[in-house]
Parts: sequence; C-alpha cells; structure tokens
Amino acid sequence: MAKEKKLVEAITDMEADFPQWYTDVVKKADLTDYSTIKGCMILRPYGYAIWELLQQQMDQRFKETGHENVYMPMFIPESLLQKEKDHVEGFAPEVAWVTQGGESQLPERLCVRPTSETLFCEHYSHIIQSYRDLPKLYNQWCSVVRWEKTTRPFLRTTEFLWQEGHTAHATAEEAEEETIKMLNVYAEFCHNVLAIPVIKGEKTAKERFAGAKATYTIESLMHDGKALQSGTSHNFGDGFARAFNIQFTDKDNQLQYVHQTSWGTTTRLIGAIIMVHGDNSGLVLPPKIAPTQVIILPIAQHKEGVLEKAEEIRTRLSAVSRVKLDASDKSAGWKFSEYEMKGVPIRLELGPKDIEKNQVVLVRRDNGEKIVASMDNLEEKITSLLEDIQNNLLQRATERRDSKTYIARTMDEFEKILQETPGFIKAMWCGDQACEDAIKERTTATSRCIPFEQETISDTCICCGKKAKHMVYWGKAY
Amino acid sequence: MAKEKKLVEAITDMEADFPQWYTDVVKKADLTDYSTIKGCMILRPYGYAIWELLQQQMDQRFKETGHENVYMPMFIPESLLQKEKDHVEGFAPEVAWVTQGGESQLPERLCVRPTSETLFCEHYSHIIQSYRDLPKLYNQWCSVVRWEKTTRPFLRTTEFLWQEGHTAHATAEEAEEETIKMLNVYAEFCHNVLAIPVIKGEKTAKERFAGAKATYTIESLMHDGKALQSGTSHNFGDGFARAFNIQFTDKDNQLQYVHQTSWGTTTRLIGAIIMVHGDNSGLVLPPKIAPTQVIILPIAQHKEGVLEKAEEIRTRLSAVSRVKLDASDKSAGWKFSEYEMKGVPIRLELGPKDIEKNQVVLVRRDNGEKIVASMDNLEEKITSLLEDIQNNLLQRATERRDSKTYIARTMDEFEKILQETPGFIKAMWCGDQACEDAIKERTTATSRCIPFEQETISDTCICCGKKAKHMVYWGKAY
Repeated sequence: MAKEKKLVEAITDMEADFPQWYTDVVKKADLTDYSTIKGCMILRPYGYAIWELLQQQMDQRFKETGHENVYMPMFIPESLLQKEKDHVEGFAPEVAWVTQGGESQLPERLCVRPTSETLFCEHYSHIIQSYRDLPKLYNQWCSVVRWEKTTRPFLRTTEFLWQEGHTAHATAEEAEEETIKMLNVYAEFCHNVLAIPVIKGEKTAKERFAGAKATYTIESLMHDGKALQSGTSHNFGDGFARAFNIQFTDKDNQLQYVHQTSWGTTTRLIGAIIMVHGDNSGLVLPPKIAPTQVIILPIAQHKEGVLEKAEEIRTRLSAVSRVKLDASDKSAGWKFSEYEMKGVPIRLELGPKDIEKNQVVLVRRDNGEKIVASMDNLEEKITSLLEDIQNNLLQRATERRDSKTYIARTMDEFEKILQETPGFIKAMWCGDQACEDAIKERTTATSRCIPFEQETISDTCICCGKKAKHMVYWGKAY
Repeated sequence: MAKEKKLVEAITDMEADFPQWYTDVVKKADLTDYSTIKGCMILRPYGYAIWELLQQQMDQRFKETGHENVYMPMFIPESLLQKEKDHVEGFAPEVAWVTQGGESQLPERLCVRPTSETLFCEHYSHIIQSYRDLPKLYNQWCSVVRWEKTTRPFLRTTEFLWQEGHTAHATAEEAEEETIKMLNVYAEFCHNVLAIPVIKGEKTAKERFAGAKATYTIESLMHDGKALQSGTSHNFGDGFARAFNIQFTDKDNQLQYVHQTSWGTTTRLIGAIIMVHGDNSGLVLPPKIAPTQVIILPIAQHKEGVLEKAEEIRTRLSAVSRVKLDASDKSAGWKFSEYEMKGVPIRLELGPKDIEKNQVVLVRRDNGEKIVASMDNLEEKITSLLEDIQNNLLQRATERRDSKTYIARTMDEFEKILQETPGFIKAMWCGDQACEDAIKERTTATSRCIPFEQETISDTCICCGKKAKHMVYWGKAY
C-alpha cells in the first residue's frame, strides 16, 4: 500500500491550490510530457486517445452538416499574411518565422500558420468562379503555432492541435446562418459528448477575432469559477473576399464577393474536461470520450478461475464498451488509485467470492457508488450505467455552473462576488468599450459574451449608469 | 456532349507522355491544388478523403498490433537534431529553419521536423526507466517538411502527410522482430487495401535511412515500369539509445540501452494508387479506399418516378457502401466522364425503362463491363461486385508487375531491358558498393532491394564477375 499512498499524496488538493492541482492531474494521469521546446507539449498516448475520441465525434458532426476535410500547407508567405490588414495586425506579433530552407536564405519569410484564413482565401480565389461553386464548406484538422509568453498544458501552448472550418457563401445571410449553425454544433457537442454546459453568445467588438465582423463564442465555467472560451465561430462578411479578390458570377451574371466564416476548437477542450469534471482523486472522464470506459480488476487473481472469468467478462463487455483488464502483479490499492487518477468511468472488481455468487462489484468514478451486479445481463447494466454517468456529469456540471452564476447590480457587488465567490457575473452594459475597459481595470474580469438568451437585470449600465444595451456575462478567464 | 468530349480530350494519353498523364489525372480528378509556397500542395476534399480512408484502415492495423498514437512538437532544436551524427548529416541539408519567434530572434534555431526520431528519443529518455516500461510502441500521424528542389504532387513535396512509428525494446531480437512485423503490416495493407502488390526486402547499405543499422522496404511497380519505394521500416539497434542515453534497468538490475525501430508511409501511397491502377480515362480507385464506391446516375430524371426510385436505391445501398446520387442538371455524358475521371468503382444507371423492368445498369470502372441487374437483392450484388473489383485490380496489377519483371545475366542485357522494356530487373550482386555505383552510373537504375525471397540466377556478380552474394531488384525509381 506504500505506493498507493504515495500516489494519492502526490496530488495537491484542488481547494488548496487549483493551478497546482491541474498540473498534477495532467502529469499523473499521463496526459502530457514537457518537451525541450519552450511551450510545446507532448501528447502522450492517454491524452492523445482522448483527443482522437473527441475528434471522431466532432468530425462526424461536421460531415453530417455537409463539410469536407482538406489539408493546406503549414507555411504562409509574409506577403500573403499581410493581405488583410486587421488580420495581420492581430497575428504577426505572435508567429514563428522560417527564414532558411535547406542551405539557403529564403527570398521571403514564411510564417508557420497561426490560423489558415489567408491560405483558404487564396485557394478559394482559384476554385470559386460561379454561384454553382458555392457554398464551399471546408474543414481542416492540423496543428498551429502561436508564440506565447506563458504557457500551460492544453490551455495555452505554443503549438496546439485544432480544427479550423472555413466556408464561403453566396450571400451575407447564408454566412451568418453558417456561423450560428457551427456555434450550435459546438454547443451540442460540449453538452452531449463532453458533458459540459456552455453559454452561447457574441463577443464584444473588443474581443472579436482579427478580421471578423462578428465573433460568437461558447463559454464554460471551471471548478475554480474561472471561465474558459471553449470554441469560437466568426463571420467575416466580405472583408477577406475583397482583400483576396474572391468573386463569383451570380445567377444574373453579375460579379459578387463571397461571404465567409471560420470556426475553431482546440485541444483546450481537454483542459475544460479536466477542470469541469475532475476531483481530488484526479481525472473524471465522461464515458463518451473515455479511452477506457470499464477497467476490470481481478481480486486474488492467483486463485483458480479468477483470471479466466475476468477474461470472459472482458470479451463480453468489449461488444458494448471500451474495456480493459489489468491482470498485472501491481497491488489492488495501486490499481484503484491509478484508474481513479485516469478517470475511468467504471471499475469492475471480481474475486473468487463474486464468482461463487455469480456477481461483480461495479464502482462509479463520478460518485464512488458501489453496485453489486449479477453477471447475467452485464452488458445491459454497463450500457445503462455509462449513460447514467454521462448524464450525471452533465447535470452536476450544470448545477455547479448555475450555482456559480451571479447577478451584479452595482460595481461594488460585482467586485465582492469576484473576490469572494468567483464565477460568471451577469451585469448590464451600455455597449461602450470605455466601460468594458473600466470594468476590466477595476476588477480584472473581462466580458465573456453577450448571451443569446438576454435578461433584463436593470435599465442602466453597471459602470456608467447610462442606458444599458445588453446583459453581459463577465468573469475571470483562462 | 461537347463538354464531355472536352474533358476526355484534356487528358494526355499515358503511353504518349506518362508524367503529363499523371499531372492531368491529379488535377482533373480534383485531388490537389498548387499553393503559393514552392513545392507544397493543397489536398482537396477528394484527395483528402482518400487519405482519410487509407489512414483509418492503416491506423486500425497499428492498434491491432498494440501501437498507441501520440503527438510530438513540430519543432526540433538544432542541438537535439545534432545528437546522432549520421542522422543529422542525412537531414540537415534539407530542413526548414525557424529563426524568429514573435518579435524576437531565437537563441537557437529550430528546424521544422523532417522526421521525429530525435524527439521520440528525448521523450523515451524521460519515460523509460525499467524493463517494465518496455516495449514502447508509439506512432504519430502528422506532416513533415523536407526542402526539396524538384517536387511532384504526392510523390515528392516540401511538406507531406505521413505516419511515423517509433518503438523501443529491451533486446535486439525484439527490435528486429518489430521492424519486420511492421514491414509485413505495410505489405499486407498495400495488398489487401490498395490492391498493390509489393516486393519486400532489405535496402543496401548505400540506400539505408540516416542512422539506421538496417532499412527494409516495400517496392511497387508503376504503369510506366518505374519503381516506387512505398514504405520503409528501420532497425536502429542501440545507436540512438547511446546518443540519447536511453537506458533501462533489466530484470537482473543491470543498466541496458534500448533497441529502437522506426517505420513510415506517406501520402506518396496516393501517387502509387494513381500510377498502378489509373488508365486513359483517369483515376481507378480500389473500392476499399474509394470515397464514393457507387455513383447513381438517373437517366431522363425529369420523368415521373425516376428521382424517387434513385433516391430509394441510394438509401438502400448506403447500408452496404459509400454511395452518392448525382441528380444535378449536368448532361449524362459529362457525368459519365466526371465519375470515370474520379475512379468511382461502380456507376449505376437507372431510367424509366429500367424501372419498368425492375432493373438497373451497373458499369464497372475497372474493365468497363456493363451488367444488367435486378433491383431485388441489389445490396448483395453491389457488395460482391465491389469485392470482385478489388480482387481484379490486385490481380491485374500483379500480372502487370510480373510481366514487367525481368532477369538480367549480363550488363548488356540489363541495359537493353531498361531501355526497351523498363521494369524491375533481377540480377546478382557481389555486395560491393563499387558495383552498385557502377551499375547506377552506366544504366541510371538503382538497387531497389535485396528481396526476402532470394533466387539464384547465377553465381557471379553481374557487374564485376566475382562471387555473388545476393539477388537484387533494380530499377529506375521515383
């Protein structure tokens, strides 16, 4: 039991030091390793397996909504990056530059893509001629690079994995519809797959993506009351189309600029999973993205028939779940801690006495509940238990999020909430950036979004007292 | 019919100009587009969909053989690249260097990975301590960059997509076993999925991977008689382990160096598919990697009931195949050419008369055969037809490969074959690099591999006349 104790002791309590708890979980659950390159992480097998499950289920949604995957080069010539003024201003300060290829100096610097709008725009200018070529609904899975000063695994790294959708449409209405549609796909995905409730809304002008006419966001709330921007969807209008001359002949034979969107989510979602569901024993994974959904631990496995029975059950359950059997010679205590740390949704224990009674013991990772279950119909039991766990995680996260969502009517209230009980703060805003800036300066909170579901808390801006335009979600953010 | 004709005319005849035929097919089948970055290609939806199918089926084989996916950073610090002497000499001349990050000059240049041995080695040196940590069986799907002077879509591009397996083992025997096992996985995959027969063998010392003790290869033969190296598997022995100090404590508590392997395949395999199966009407795709396996073309689709029936059949066939219905207002002739160009295995035609007779017309892309089939049991018919096409493509490619494989007993014979009927040439070799160099200088052919299946053509080296050590496959190569 020495090892087990050591393992448990090694995790910082999340109430004592949340950032350290996070770092501990990432490391102890074998999700990432550090590399020698500043701010770049190595995704280890367990971390990458979560990403693969997330990717498959998101990609399926993209395909169901008519999107096609492509692959663009990872380099962007400096002149191409500079074609859209706002865009280059937003990204140029944080890109990595390739200046040498092979043994010679390049005539023009290439940046390693921080995002690929410019590459898609150039390609679209080649392949779009007629209204018959529209819409173009493309997506790309790749990594991008942004030269970050401070980094944390999953939340902010110099290189990260992501998907970036890029679409072109005949009309402004279609582009807006696509922008909202994909935000809804993200929200539904977080809700149903990651068991994470999100607030959908629009970013203020200040928080917009470089070059966008409108940026929409899904915002989630972490265990520590901080917000995490979990996915964004941008409507570019025809700004990029004008910069890159992406024109098509419409049905009336007139030349028109296309209207474009882009939308993205990243490995940051794994950070959200950790910080929304995790606890002081480690990771807690929603079954839908758990690489192992059921871990079978044979008890007294040297006794006759135990391993055979465990293997038989593994085979049966593999038809309905991602199941593993750990028959290694490590102690039961060590194994319990290990799979708790890794957030495996169900632990299945099976010893000689259980076999006698034709039963197994199931332990839920989400709430610790122990269930004695018959070996008959075990497939059905596991299937429904995984569903229960998935639903319970969503419900619990929603309740926690709601209990940490506050209304502020005065700046004093706003500050008090943020200091004493951090979370989402709903407060009215006049729409002026001056007030947004003043609130940030006074409280360190930023506007998270102008939610689609508006409420009227009062008629006046919490900051300046003038007429309010919107109810806004505010909070400290990752 | 004007458009159809134009489309067909636009492809160069493969017998007249094979390289131009290749370029035409790549472009006309919408596989790639050029980007502004020299030598980088854009994988368009149809090209990327082939890659996705290939990737899924190969990844499944990796997982079945116990491998796990990870993701390493795309940058390698110059000092890390230099740790293994042979390796850096092989790759340094062809890498892209990042020298600036954000707004500052980097203290050390970073190369964009040309391959990731050094990154895996560094990671392994962190995570391997004991024999219990072995073997490590990792794989990565990513893109790599090699600064190439002359490039061609899929065959040689500055950036390309690939997978790279990297494994670490306790003993030399296990490493060798893994190296051969993965070569066999590649060969089986080419055979059963891509319908491409390959020769398995070892590379000569001259053709070895930079830093490897032994390099194994699968070699395939293109329509024009040129060879294509289609996948390689390397045994590094403990060379990298010594350079990177990857040691473990064995069961007897002794420190040992690990033995390592790496193995890779790339988007080049798509080039092989084009050049092995394609014909003068365009691409011919093996059903297993065809994004669309059946294209339904309604005839006289304005007539009552035709579209409804076509849609009904599409729904039925979607249970057993990747099927699409093209109900656009383009001409039937245009559609025929388009889907031939794209290599769709089965064209299903359906008009009012067919509906009356409860039948459809099926046209095979591989041999042009027309089959009138009953609408009853159409699912079974399509399933078996797709299998037939897959098998026929493999058989045809094998026969063509065999008919273009020659035996040379003298250098004159060797030269004559290469000039008149290019293909694989089997000839004896003494094992000296001087002879290998001389053969290349005289004939432009290179050694493709020392095949596992050896034959004795004669007792003497074809070049120097001394005692022969191996029978070698030679050929001109891409």
